[in-house]
Parts: sequence; structure tokens; C-alpha cells
Amino acid sequence: MKRNLYLTTTPVEEAREIYMDALGDAAMPHAETVKVIDALGRITSEAVYAVYSSPLYNSAAMDGIAVISARTEGAAESSPLTLRSGEDYIIVDTGDPIRKPYDAVIMAEDTQECEDGIIIRAAAPAWQHVRPVGEDIVAGEMILTRCHCIRPIDIGVLLSGGVTEISVFRKPKVGIIPTGTEIVEPYEDPEEGDIIESNSRMFEAMVRENGGAPVRYGIVPDDYEAIKNRVITALDENDMVIVNAGSSAGTEDYTVHILRELGEVFVHGVAMKPGKPVILAKVSGKPVIGIPGYPVSAYLAMENFAYPVLRRFTGMKDSSERTIEAVLSRRLVSSLKHREYVRVRVGKVGDRYICAPLARGAGAAMSMVRADGFCVIPQESEGYEAGEKVSVNLFRSPEEIDRTIVCTGSHDILLDVISDLMSGEAEGMRLSSTHIGSLGGLMALRRGEAHITPSHLLDEETGIYNESYIKSLFPDEEILLVKGVRRIQGLMVAAGNPLDIKGIEDLTRIRFVNRQRGAGTRVLLDFKLRQAGISPDEVCGYDAEAATHMAVAAQVAGGEADCGMGVYSAAHAMGLDFIPVGEEEYDFVMRPETLEMPEIKCFLKLLASPDFRDKLEELGGYSLEGLGEIRRISSR
Amino acid sequence: MKRNLYLTTTPVEEAREIYMDALGDAAMPHAETVKVIDALGRITSEAVYAVYSSPLYNSAAMDGIAVISARTEGAAESSPLTLRSGEDYIIVDTGDPIRKPYDAVIMAEDTQECEDGIIIRAAAPAWQHVRPVGEDIVAGEMILTRCHCIRPIDIGVLLSGGVTEISVFRKPKVGIIPTGTEIVEPYEDPEEGDIIESNSRMFEAMVRENGGAPVRYGIVPDDYEAIKNRVITALDENDMVIVNAGSSAGTEDYTVHILRELGEVFVHGVAMKPGKPVILAKVSGKPVIGIPGYPVSAYLAMENFAYPVLRRFTGMKDSSERTIEAVLSRRLVSSLKHREYVRVRVGKVGDRYICAPLARGAGAAMSMVRADGFCVIPQESEGYEAGEKVSVNLFRSPEEIDRTIVCTGSHDILLDVISDLMSGEAEGMRLSSTHIGSLGGLMALRRGEAHITPSHLLDEETGIYNESYIKSLFPDEEILLVKGVRRIQGLMVAAGNPLDIKGIEDLTRIRFVNRQRGAGTRVLLDFKLRQAGISPDEVCGYDAEAATHMAVAAQVAGGEADCGMGVYSAAHAMGLDFIPVGEEEYDFVMRPETLEMPEIKCFLKLLASPDFRDKLEELGGYSLEGLGEIRRISSR
Repeated sequence: MKRNLYLTTTPVEEAREIYMDALGDAAMPHAETVKVIDALGRITSEAVYAVYSSPLYNSAAMDGIAVISARTEGAAESSPLTLRSGEDYIIVDTGDPIRKPYDAVIMAEDTQECEDGIIIRAAAPAWQHVRPVGEDIVAGEMILTRCHCIRPIDIGVLLSGGVTEISVFRKPKVGIIPTGTEIVEPYEDPEEGDIIESNSRMFEAMVRENGGAPVRYGIVPDDYEAIKNRVITALDENDMVIVNAGSSAGTEDYTVHILRELGEVFVHGVAMKPGKPVILAKVSGKPVIGIPGYPVSAYLAMENFAYPVLRRFTGMKDSSERTIEAVLSRRLVSSLKHREYVRVRVGKVGDRYICAPLARGAGAAMSMVRADGFCVIPQESEGYEAGEKVSVNLFRSPEEIDRTIVCTGSHDILLDVISDLMSGEAEGMRLSSTHIGSLGGLMALRRGEAHITPSHLLDEETGIYNESYIKSLFPDEEILLVKGVRRIQGLMVAAGNPLDIKGIEDLTRIRFVNRQRGAGTRVLLDFKLRQAGISPDEVCGYDAEAATHMAVAAQVAGGEADCGMGVYSAAHAMGLDFIPVGEEEYDFVMRPETLEMPEIKCFLKLLASPDFRDKLEELGGYSLEGLGEIRRISSR
Repeated sequence: MKRNLYLTTTPVEEAREIYMDALGDAAMPHAETVKVIDALGRITSEAVYAVYSSPLYNSAAMDGIAVISARTEGAAESSPLTLRSGEDYIIVDTGDPIRKPYDAVIMAEDTQECEDGIIIRAAAPAWQHVRPVGEDIVAGEMILTRCHCIRPIDIGVLLSGGVTEISVFRKPKVGIIPTGTEIVEPYEDPEEGDIIESNSRMFEAMVRENGGAPVRYGIVPDDYEAIKNRVITALDENDMVIVNAGSSAGTEDYTVHILRELGEVFVHGVAMKPGKPVILAKVSGKPVIGIPGYPVSAYLAMENFAYPVLRRFTGMKDSSERTIEAVLSRRLVSSLKHREYVRVRVGKVGDRYICAPLARGAGAAMSMVRADGFCVIPQESEGYEAGEKVSVNLFRSPEEIDRTIVCTGSHDILLDVISDLMSGEAEGMRLSSTHIGSLGGLMALRRGEAHITPSHLLDEETGIYNESYIKSLFPDEEILLVKGVRRIQGLMVAAGNPLDIKGIEDLTRIRFVNRQRGAGTRVLLDFKLRQAGISPDEVCGYDAEAATHMAVAAQVAGGEADCGMGVYSAAHAMGLDFIPVGEEEYDFVMRPETLEMPEIKCFLKLLASPDFRDKLEELGGYSLEGLGEIRRISSR
């Protein structure tokens, strides 16, 4: 078993500094000349000066008549003056040149036609309504500095100033080499043991967004010589090379050895999580970066190390991240060993930004899609407590965050349906839902960290859903309960039900997967178990937890468990069999003032929309009686 | 003289509403299928669901060994256990599948090789370090909602989830028709009366940035039938058409008549300045917009009316503008007749954002390039007083604004040189200079509205520059005077000096162009006039004002004036002759605390740099003795 167990772990900034210093001239921008009309988004490599003035000549600033100012003297409301065409004036449109002897313009609105010519009622001082040559742009004047990113308006002004070509930084060619015997192209059908190659395509897009020209190579298997040869080829054809992955210390992680053989490795391993196994090297005078394989690690390694190198090549400035202060919704523990990047969802509730941490695994790429930003825990920190203010680097604009409904509580696929419908609204609203179970959601609502909580908590004594929980959690407040759906809960089992599971009583003889504490589904299970006289101890897997209906369904579909409890739609989506065990009420809880939010108004509108009903019918397992009815709950 | 003098002027929002309502189905998005790898920046037309789970199977989350958890029971620090290869464990790398009978992974770091196999010192609970199938993405799960703009991370996750093609909104084809007999292509040499056609190229870039596919047509002269035929062709080939210009009420403004003949015009004229003569029409069931010819008007008309239509087609959301509150540095008067868009420069001085209005003309395109944003004066407002807080729609990020030096005072081309050098610094700093003359600059500095003031104010009694002005303006403060350059001031006259101007005494017989009140150059002129015993009344054009050396030079070059006073470099840049009248000191004034700013440190570093000296030598007319020396001025 050959491994390089001991990567060093250099702090992030230090690693970057070491590398950027070591690169020196290995990442220098080169200039090329492009047509101005093709220059949108390019970066100037030198200052640009106007060739012509604009206007090019003295010109009419208004539609009207060009006059000789001296001949208009004395004209007044009380003593109108008649000007004769061709002698005293000529008709001009905006932009027409004003040539001698004419030296002023009178607006069309201030003239009156008559038989002999035109009557004016005010004298025109010299140069009235005349745009002098160079009023806008003076020939020789600097229009743009170097390192300026060309916008549409710049294109207009450059052309007006007689500039048709400019010098910009050449887009660096970035070779991207995906490696790995187990990875397959996305267009092939994957088998067990295969991993779909997606990182290189993400890198292509990241390189493009940062002003580079990506060149992706085909997948190279884990073979020392094959990878080495591909690196040599890519170096020959590009300004910079990215190797993915093999950057770690596994048995088949050749990248660092190859780069050591071919050139110089400056850093192997960075104190950052996810993203530790980064390799920063220089080969044949060009930057080569080894990027780890897990998608989140890959993303962070690209952002922290490939972007600065790209910026050297492209002349782009570090577009400083948008950062906001947000209140942490739960405790975040981290290690002193590394800087940790935790993906978070962010929403504005009242006047506070609230951030909720998402899945932290390096493989949890979907959490990157769901995330609104990163909360960075510094290397020297052990983390933050719930309620602490933390700084969040946003992926979205604060305006977008402001228009987001923070939905925290129980999960149901119908939230995805509403979220999708909301995204289609012209106002650009979003529904951001975090799944921590009904009870957790109500607690968040109470702390002012959510706008709305989907909840299905059964009061076993009364058989009534949600009300008693709301009354005990919000003793001094009036709270709104928006009626949602009745949904069928049941046992999800493999297709064909091979273990012949018929109901709750069978849970003692199979491997179960449960929902987390505080989840309404778990409350229902406990209720059903008690009814059946079964103790949790008798259920194998009672302590195995999954966070959503879909996650439970996936575990059953994947064979880690034989059975789990959840809603019909999840079972249906995963092709599982479904054994109904009861109906329950899935409602939405919110504070009265929330009703005033345009986003919540939109939510309620969509809840009542035919599109929503149609989609739920298609999913199956719901009954929609009373949907959208609002009740006020108060324990006073 | 045929004109349509009377455009109506509909308020901006009302015009937009009328038009968007009238368009109805004439601007509906259409979907098309694209490969995920080509989808960067495209907008989803429907929700996207995962096809496969990720991971596809239970897989190792760490490099190490896969074990049968039951067989590791009892292992502890005090009672190590030896596992045999092939029986009790197999070696796995991260991502490898974990198949029965194996059900847990032990990290390589926690194992120790021995002769018989591997020694472990802790039991592995079932599913330790195993990523269960679907941990990241569950097949059937919604990955993206509709109307989502595809980012690099989305591409990665879509491919991982087995999605290789997605449905996105088709890019609308936008036909752009430049019209006008007087306009010429930028690649031709313009003659007097010609206007370089640049708007259509700006439109192309604007359409591209907003997700459309521009189709630009060649220039059509002002001919009713020719324009009409081009509009018909363009409608045939595009989803939407933009006609520029001929949208006003001039003699040759045919656009509105053509659109009335071919279809329906809903709005002609909007209460917005610049940008009033907009035409909003529908022809053959497609949107056609007539855009005014002045570049700033064109830009604003595009932004206010073409963008919303484009967004309908593309499914893009209105990316809400970045707005900040800023203190207005001088009074802004506007009319109740329209909403006015005033371009402003914005900088942060201390903890306040300060905004300085720029040129307001519809033709002042260069002011758009210089601007950091717009201050919008509502239609029902007559304007704002200096010192009032106004809201500014930023073109740049607030972070960029924060790294900007606000330089307010006297103008010299060397400011452009430093500005260019600063832009090349890796830190992304900017120098934003506003030219209001030395005295105006010192007043702004005193009000806390500038970081630095370039000044060349002569004390006629002592012959010393700047000091006495600083002492009297800042009686209770210590102020820093950074020595700048000595520069030659002189008279700029047409090449060859046709009027044989030899010095100040000749100013009584020619047409002069002066600088604005408070400009150091004007103070110097007044001093020289007094020395020569000439009264300002005797100088024709003494009251004609221009704001910069280059503007003065342009007026002389353009023939509106025979002579103006300014610096050698401006005369040189415009190809004028130069008659020196004296040297003066051009220094930089700032508060001591400003020295701490990294941007100011950079400014001072560049002031002393060889690049800067070389460039000034190339420009000519400067002496650099003492450049960068800092003196403390205090009247106490």
C-alpha cells in the first residue's frame, strides 16, 4: 500500500503568496489587438486615447434654424424679427454642422413661419444651442485607462472618438486534464464503480467566466506515463494547465509525483476545508495546478488558487466578494487545523440576515447549488455559536436575498413545486427552504429566523395537527396557520416489496431508516409504534437518520435499508412500493405581519393556483381540501 | 419645414406599463434544448430534475480500507486487532464502491501495516466513512428551478445528476437598424458633417449582455421607403427590432411615421431626460422600438424600454441595481417636466459617499464612461440642494468605489497618467478626478468631499503658491502639501500662429477663451493682465469659460476662439502652437489622516515612480524638482 500520507498543510494566504511569488514571469499577461466592436468584456492592456474629437465639428444641438447671432439682436417678445431663408438662417436638424457665417441655433419651438421667412421673438447669443467641436471628447484625450473591462458604453465612445481597434490582454489558454480510471464521460451510461466526470466541465465554465479560454482534454486513466504525457502535451498547447484529480495521497494519486518529475512543486496541501489536497507547481515555465476530485473541494481550490493566476494573465481585478453580516441559526464547530468554508443559505427576516449552514461534506455539490454563500471559519477559530453574527460571502446579490422567503421546517416535495413556480414570477422572488423537521422549524420561527414553517406535528391526545404545538411555543402571540395539504404517509419499500412488508408490525424484522428527531414523520412513527405496542429498541435502524423524504427513499432504493417512512410522492419518484399507514396534515405556520410581504402574498397566490394543484395531482398522494385557508391561533 | 413638434411625454413607468401590456404575446420566451456543457449563462425554461443519484452507489468517503464492521468489534487502543487482506478488508480510494460484505471504511491514517495484514485500534461502526447512494443528489430530485441562470457549479451538478441536456430560453434575435444620411461607419474617414455611427455597436453589446443575439444591419440613409423596407426585412428575420434614430420630431425623422404605417405606435415621447424621443411600437406582432440618436439618450432608452422587453424574451430577472445613499457635492436643478438621469462620480471620503454631478448633455457620452452611476431626479422634483442625501444607482460595485481616490480640483493631464498607472496596480485602485478648479477643490476638501486636491493658486503678494490659500481656508487644521510639478503655462494658438500672438498684450485684439472662476489658470491670467495693465473688459471672450486645459485647446483647435491659456501638454496634444508666459507650481493638498489610506500610499508611490517621470517627460512642459515632498502647513 503506497501512499503519501503526509501532505503539508500551508495556510491559504501563505500558499497563495508562495505560489504567486514563485510563478513570477510564468503568468504574465500578453496583449493582442482586437476590433472595438468585438471587445465587450475584454480588458485594456494600455490606456486608450481619442483619435477624433466628438462632435467632429461645431454642430446643432437642437432641431431648428441656424442663424447669424448678430442679425438676431433686438428681437424680443414685443419686437419680433423676421429672418429670411438662405440669408439670415438655414434649417438644421440636431447634429448638422454649423458653418460660418452661422454661429447660433434657435429651437424650432421658438420660431414661427411666415410668408417672408421665419419670425423670432428673442435674440440668439453667439454659440447658443451649438455643440462646439470636442464638447464630448477631445482628440488626444484619454478615454480609458489600462486594465479596464470594456462595457457597451465604452464601445460607443471609443468608436465616436475614432478608435476602431484596441489593445487588450490575450485570453490565456487553460488546459484541463481530467484523470481517473473510474470516471466516465457524462454521455455514457454509468455502472457501479463509475463516477460521472463533471469537474472539468465546471472548470471550463469557471475559466470562461474569468476571461480564459479553456481547452479540455479527454479523460486519462490512472496511469503514470499516460498522465505525464498528457501534461506535457497540454503544457505545449496552453498557457496554464489544471490536472484533476489525483492530487491527494491515495494509492493512485500520481499527479504530485509527475509534477515533481517534470518541474517544481511549491505547495502540496493547504489548510482549507474542503479543498486541502491542492498542488501548486510550475513546469516548463508555466503554472500547473493539481485540483482535488470532490466537487466542493475542486470549486474552492479553483477559486482560491486558479483564479489569482488567471487574473494575472487576464489583467482582471479581484472583484471583491459581496459580504454581509448574518446571524448564525445554529452552532458551527470547526477545527484549528484549517480554514473551513461552510455553505449557507441566507435570508432576511425582519431586519436581520439569518444564515443556516448546509451540508458540509466535500462531496455535497448540491449544497453549493442550494447555497446563497459561504461562511468562512478562520483557521485560528474553533467555530461559532448559534446566534453569533458571522460574515457571509454571498453568491447572490443582497437584493435577491431580500426577495427570498425563508422557509424552515418540515420537508415535502411540494416546496420544490412552489419554489419552481415562484422562480417563474416576473418579480424574481425565491423560496429558500431548509429542512430541519417541523419542531426545529417552529423553534426557528420563534427565534425570528424564518418567515414560514411547514409543519405536520400530531397531538396524540387530540388527534389535531400543529395547533397545540403552536400554542405552547408561542404563548403570548397570535400566529397564523395556513392550511396546506393532507398527505398520505406510508412505508417505502423496494419495488415488488420483496420482504413482504405489510405494516408497522413488520418493522421489527427488517432494517429501517428513520427521520431525524423533531421531524413530524418521526412523531407519526412513534405514535404508530406505540399503537402497535412496539418499542423503538425492537426496530433495527431506528437510530439511523435521514433528513428528507427523498433521502429516506434513496437509502431504501440503494439497499442500505429495507424500509423507511415517508410520503407517497418520494416513493413514487424513486420507483419504490408504498404501503399507506395514515393521512396527516401538512400546514404552514407564520407570524401575522409576514402576510404583508409581497413574497408571501405571491406564495399564497401560488398555493391557490391551478398550476400548483395540477402538479400535486400529478405527484399523487395529496388531498387539497381547504388548501390556503388561514386560521389565527392564539393561546390567550 | 415639416416637423412633428408635439411629442407627448408619458411618465417613464406609465410608458413601460402601457407598452408591456400592449405587447402581450408579442414578447414571449421560447424554449430550446442545449447541451449542459454549453449552457453557461443560459436561463432554464423549466425545472430540472436529477436522472441519476450521486453518488451512484455506496462509496468510500476516504482513502483507506473497506471493512466488515462486525469483524472490527472489540478493537481498541489497548487491544489492537489484525485484519487480513482479502478476507477482512480491501484497500479503497475515495470514491471506490463499497460492496457487500463490506459496510464501513477505516481511514488510512488510522491503520498500520504488519506482516499478516493491517492493525486497527478502533472498531468501525457500520457505514462509517461511507457515502450512501444519493447522499449528494437523489434521482428525481429537483436540481434547478425554472428561470435560473446557469453557473459553473450548476453545470457540475447537472452532469453528476445524469443531466446532459436542458431546456433553456432561446436567445431572442434583435435586429438593429442604424439610420441617417449623415452617419458613417467608424472605419471610414469622417468629413465635416459626418457623424460616426457608434450607437448600433453599443446596442449590440447591450443586447449581448442581456441575453439576446444582436443582428446589426448596414446604415440606411434618411429615406422613407428605404427605412420602411429595412424595418420589414428586419422584422422578418428577428424577434424584435430597434431603429436608431429618427425617433424625434426633426424634418427627417421618419421612424414614427413608418411604424404608424406598418403597425401600431403606443408611446411616442417619454418624460425622461435625456432620452425623451422614444417610440414604442408593435409591428407584425413583434416589438419595434425607436431609440433617440444622442448616445446618452440612446443608452437610457435602451435600459428603460428595450431591456424589459428583452427580459420577457430571455426569462432574465431584473437584476436590481446597486443603490447607495450619497451626499450631493453641488446643487442639482431639474424640471418638473421629466425624470432626469444625472451622471455622477461617487467616492467614499471618511464614512460618507460623496457624489459629484458630471456633464448633463444628452451628447456627453464620455461622461457616461467617467460616471460611477446615475442620480435620478424624479419627475415631481425640482432637484436637490448641495449637501442633500441622494440615492445613486451604481455602475460599479461599492467595493470598487471604496478603493477610489476622490481627486477634486485643478485639472492637469498628469492626473490621467497617474489614473492609468493606478489602474494597472494589482489592488484594483482607481483615481477619480473631477475638475472644478483649484479653489473649488480646496472648498470640497474642506467640506470633507475629497481626498486630495490638485491646486496651483498663486498668492500675488508673496509669489508663493497654495500656502496662503490653505492657511486661510483651514485656519484650525494642519494640512499636507505634497509637492507636485512646476509646469509651463502659456497661450495656445492655432498651428503656425496665424494671428501672430506674442503675449498677454495681444489678448485685446483676438477672441479669447477663458477658464472658469476659481481655476488657477484664470488666477494666473488675471495676475498677468494686471501686470500688463489690461482690464478684463478689454479681452473679448474673457467671460467664455471652458472647464479643462483640453477643452480650451479644443476650442482653439476648432476655431471658436483664437487663443486660450493652458499647459504645454494640452497644446501639444491638440497640435497647437504654444507661447510660454510663465511657470507655476501644481501641488496636491490633503489632510494628514489621508496618508494612511492604501490608495493614497499607492498614489504617492506612483508619483515617485520612473514610469510616471518618463511619461511626463514625454508629454513635455514639466519640471519635476522636489516631486512628492510632503510639507505640513498650519496657520497655528
